[in-house]
Amino acid sequence: MSSSDRVRDHAGQGASTVAAHRARRRLRADRARQLADLLRHQVLGGAFPTGPLPHESVLATDYRASRNTVREALDLLRAEGLVERLPGVGTVVVAQKYPHGLDRLMGLAETLREHGRVTNEVRTMGPVPAPAPVADRLHLPSGTDVLYIERLRRLGGLPLSLDLTYIPLDVGAALLGEDLENTDIFRLLETLTGRPLGHAEISLEAVNADAHSAAVLQAPHGAAVLMLERLTHLSDGRPVDLEFIRFRGDRITMSGLLHRSL
Amino acid sequence: MSSSDRVRDHAGQGASTVAAHRARRRLRADRARQLADLLRHQVLGGAFPTGPLPHESVLATDYRASRNTVREALDLLRAEGLVERLPGVGTVVVAQKYPHGLDRLMGLAETLREHGRVTNEVRTMGPVPAPAPVADRLHLPSGTDVLYIERLRRLGGLPLSLDLTYIPLDVGAALLGEDLENTDIFRLLETLTGRPLGHAEISLEAVNADAHSAAVLQAPHGAAVLMLERLTHLSDGRPVDLEFIRFRGDRITMSGLLHRSL
Repeated sequence: MSSSDRVRDHAGQGASTVAAHRARRRLRADRARQLADLLRHQVLGGAFPTGPLPHESVLATDYRASRNTVREALDLLRAEGLVERLPGVGTVVVAQKYPHGLDRLMGLAETLREHGRVTNEVRTMGPVPAPAPVADRLHLPSGTDVLYIERLRRLGGLPLSLDLTYIPLDVGAALLGEDLENTDIFRLLETLTGRPLGHAEISLEAVNADAHSAAVLQAPHGAAVLMLERLTHLSDGRPVDLEFIRFRGDRITMSGLLHRSL
Repeated sequence: MSSSDRVRDHAGQGASTVAAHRARRRLRADRARQLADLLRHQVLGGAFPTGPLPHESVLATDYRASRNTVREALDLLRAEGLVERLPGVGTVVVAQKYPHGLDRLMGLAETLREHGRVTNEVRTMGPVPAPAPVADRLHLPSGTDVLYIERLRRLGGLPLSLDLTYIPLDVGAALLGEDLENTDIFRLLETLTGRPLGHAEISLEAVNADAHSAAVLQAPHGAAVLMLERLTHLSDGRPVDLEFIRFRGDRITMSGLLHRSL
């Protein structure tokens, strides 16, 4: 073997070692994600209500995974803020996500009734001339005054969502004297108009919180936020409530039932 | 005025100047978010299909906002990856989010049919012993083999979602010979079982992508991901498809209609 052959051979071995190492790491990362998804479901479903998660070695046996994979899966859940490792105790659940129904149109206090008390800090409230996209969606002439409300909503005292709301003034004016701190706008709209709500068009996105929104929600910079845009109509079809809602991603799960045929 | 009074007075003025400055900055950030939400709706709704957004001064007039607020709102949309500023051109739309229906149970290729071709890179496929939470949800004895499939799904060649799928082996085995690269599993399940799908329990969350998932999805580290967990049943009620799906937050919007009464 010439010396140049030896050099080439050596470089080839090095490259294949690096490639094999990368492949192993990728495989372990794939398996860790797979395991993390299963454990996330258990954690959020309340499978470990009273104590720590099973020991790493038990999880490794139960899920036929290596200890390293288990550790990496738990690291993923820790990065999401769902679990924490306590020295001498193990891995414990530190976060709870609350279920928000996707099956029926409900206000926050209504949908979370079993989970605690919703309180609303009204940050801004007052008439503003409707910008064109708002006027358009509320079926008003552009520039008509609408009621604009900005609320930081808390569950059990902790920030849950930041809601920006536009309401036609003929309906909204009566809201000014109401107890917005403790009552869903949905409920107030039904009481004040004497009509039930009908339906809402919704869209849901995942976005990274900008610095200011993150600060208001007391979430880390760049935290994932579940963004809900919702246009709600009264039962007679009139649009009465346009909302832009940022839910803290670590505190809410939207859930519902879909059917194959309509 | 004593010199200590003067010092105190000076400090007081400094503090109130700082407080006023902070209040102004907070107010501008609130207004920028408010404007950004309206512009986001326009951008994603295709309101500017052929050219740049209106000039900052036009937006400022249209939305009765200051130029600084407009600039800050556009910065927010840029940070989300929705728009880009091109020198000499203005602010242009650079991203498109695709609508995924929340009203009917549909596969990805089905729901996005009008928007382009969905292709699937099968990263892993093969039988694995069902972990307890999987067996439980698929109504199988724990440890029974299930088919595990991992797919990176692309729309128009760009990564859209990473899907982890568990299917009972009696149904799944037939999938091994099928064209998974180009066909929704939903469609294959209906063809292979000769039965339509019935319903699915879904849950949606916003999470920050871990490093490995972000790399697979070609998204920035920590990017917001729309996480969908879905258990799909055949029309006879049997659960046949458990999926954990990570959608790139910058490429998908879930939308649907909610009703107040069921």
